[in-house]
Amino acid sequence: PDWSIEVRDGVMQLEKRFEFPDFAQALAFTNRVGEIAEAEGHHPKLVTEWGQVIVTWWSHKIRGLHRNDFIMAAKTDQL
Amino acid sequence: PDWSIEVRDGVMQLEKRFEFPDFAQALAFTNRVGEIAEAEGHHPKLVTEWGQVIVTWWSHKIRGLHRNDFIMAAKTDQL
Repeated sequence: PDWSIEVRDGVMQLEKRFEFPDFAQALAFTNRVGEIAEAEGHHPKLVTEWGQVIVTWWSHKIRGLHRNDFIMAAKTDQL
Repeated sequence: PDWSIEVRDGVMQLEKRFEFPDFAQALAFTNRVGEIAEAEGHHPKLVTEWGQVIVTWWSHKIRGLHRNDFIMAAKTDQL
């Protein structure tokens, strides 16, 4: 499945759910996303639960989506 | 601040927001919560963002709060 565009409080956000067989592998993915976030200085919302991580990218400053968010989404897919 | 009780889809959940000065320290806390979750075999929802982590405990099986959730909340406060 692809990234969906969600609108929350008038802010467009790129969102995707990634599935895993347990909690540990979900948390490991959260950490891999955290690494690219720190490397790029651009940080998502990461909802980690048993078996899944929901990643949400948006640009706080412009309260919406910037080209960089799509780049980060593509990088997230490659993790 | 204390834990609040939220009701989502009829399920009571214990929730608390923890603040941090940046993303890395928020993610480090997420990992510490993940460690006690794995140790106890009871897993929360962890929403990690720049500067904060929202931790939510509930018992999936009973679709509500069990004594164990309050114990995990207390352990989370000690991290």
